Amino acid sequence: MVSQPDQENIVMKISARNQFQGNITAVHPGSVHTEIEIALGNGDTLVAMVTHSSAHSLGLTSGKSVLALVKASSMMVMTESEGYALSARNVLRGVVAQVISGPVSAEVKLDLPGGNTVFASITHEAARELGLSQGASASVVFKASAVILAVAS
Amino acid sequence: MVSQPDQENIVMKISARNQFQGNITAVHPGSVHTEIEIALGNGDTLVAMVTHSSAHSLGLTSGKSVLALVKASSMMVMTESEGYALSARNVLRGVVAQVISGPVSAEVKLDLPGGNTVFASITHEAARELGLSQGASASVVFKASAVILAVAS
Amino acid sequence: MVSQPDQENIVMKISARNQFQGNITAVHPGSVHTEIEIALGNGDTLVAMVTHSSAHSLGLTSGKSVLALVKASSMMVMTESEGYALSARNVLRGVVAQVISGPVSAEVKLDLPGGNTVFASITHEAARELGLSQGASASVVFKASAVILAVAS
Repeated sequence: MVSQPDQENIVMKISARNQFQGNITAVHPGSVHTEIEIALGNGDTLVAMVTHSSAHSLGLTSGKSVLALVKASSMMVMTESEGYALSARNVLRGVVAQVISGPVSAEVKLDLPGGNTVFASITHEAARELGLSQGASASVVFKASAVILAVAS
Repeated sequence: MVSQPDQENIVMKISARNQFQGNITAVHPGSVHTEIEIALGNGDTLVAMVTHSSAHSLGLTSGKSVLALVKASSMMVMTESEGYALSARNVLRGVVAQVISGPVSAEVKLDLPGGNTVFASITHEAARELGLSQGASASVVFKASAVILAVAS
Repeated sequence: MVSQPDQENIVMKISARNQFQGNITAVHPGSVHTEIEIALGNGDTLVAMVTHSSAHSLGLTSGKSVLALVKASSMMVMTESEGYALSARNVLRGVVAQVISGPVSAEVKLDLPGGNTVFASITHEAARELGLSQGASASVVFKASAVILAVAS
């Protein structure tokens, strides 16, 4: 939960289970929303969608360092999608590292190839039906609009 | 969790508790987002909002078969709304089939008149206060932007 | 869960843990979305983003009384953000009143200075790592797009 700051006086402590440090690689402005592509390092990438005014006020330009926050509850876990294309912009493939199950919810931890870790909160029943267990291949799926960006101000 | 494919080599296994097979009945393109109306069969309908570029790349046109994915956590459960209008595009009325309660969360299963089933994750406390139990009339409420669409590619 | 109506025949019973009664103070129309600023009374404010067509059909204009609905699961809890700016439009500061913890999820109740109460569902682990306990200062963070508006029709 606690991001390790590169500089002094830059501290972010927030409940988002997913906090990805990255650099903006592309900015596609629209009339209302701006799409931001972010390299997380080691090959993992994600896409965020923010309002045009946020993009402007945060100074979101190529090369800028950002912290991408995504709630675990915004993520779906997918184990197979043969023959399907999805409207969601973010599909990150990885390997299940851990599943913590409660009576209703389950938290799934995935290791991404680039070294990043992703947490997804899904229902207990969904985790059971997908047969998620340590070592299984799986992807997390989430919308670009589920990402909140934080930048050093 | 496992959608039953109509064709071979079309398999989607994803944690979204709500997976509705339907056909697009209308497409309303905007400057950034496109609104997609989907008939789920037997009278149930829903509205999805995707980016213009997703609508284009997925070939979302009237008549096309789609799989609409919605996380249970994106849904609210409503038992009364007399005299109120809502900004959310999707309000599906049904009957409570089951409530599974944990210490913090509860999963509510609703049967829709058209034969579809909907799952909503709400807080334990909310389920208690609404008096949700089997046989009660209730609606699920969710935003068009909470829907992810999948199409055979 | 049960909003207390000001008038007869106006009843809303919905599972959203956060139901804020307020008045619209500003409307900023865009090409697709409209941004709505809402005063909750006693100084607390929030920003909602709805489609242009919803804003029109609900008659969202300055001075209008609205009910702003936000799921507890749409909210992050932040205890520190020194030197950071966020893309999320809503950051409400308050004091932790209660933390209810399950094996996977935790529900955090915050009192806002203006007298409003906010509920956030986060993971058990996040609550533990942030050291959230009664009396601690914390903020809830949520996107304008997470808000659903209801108006007397």
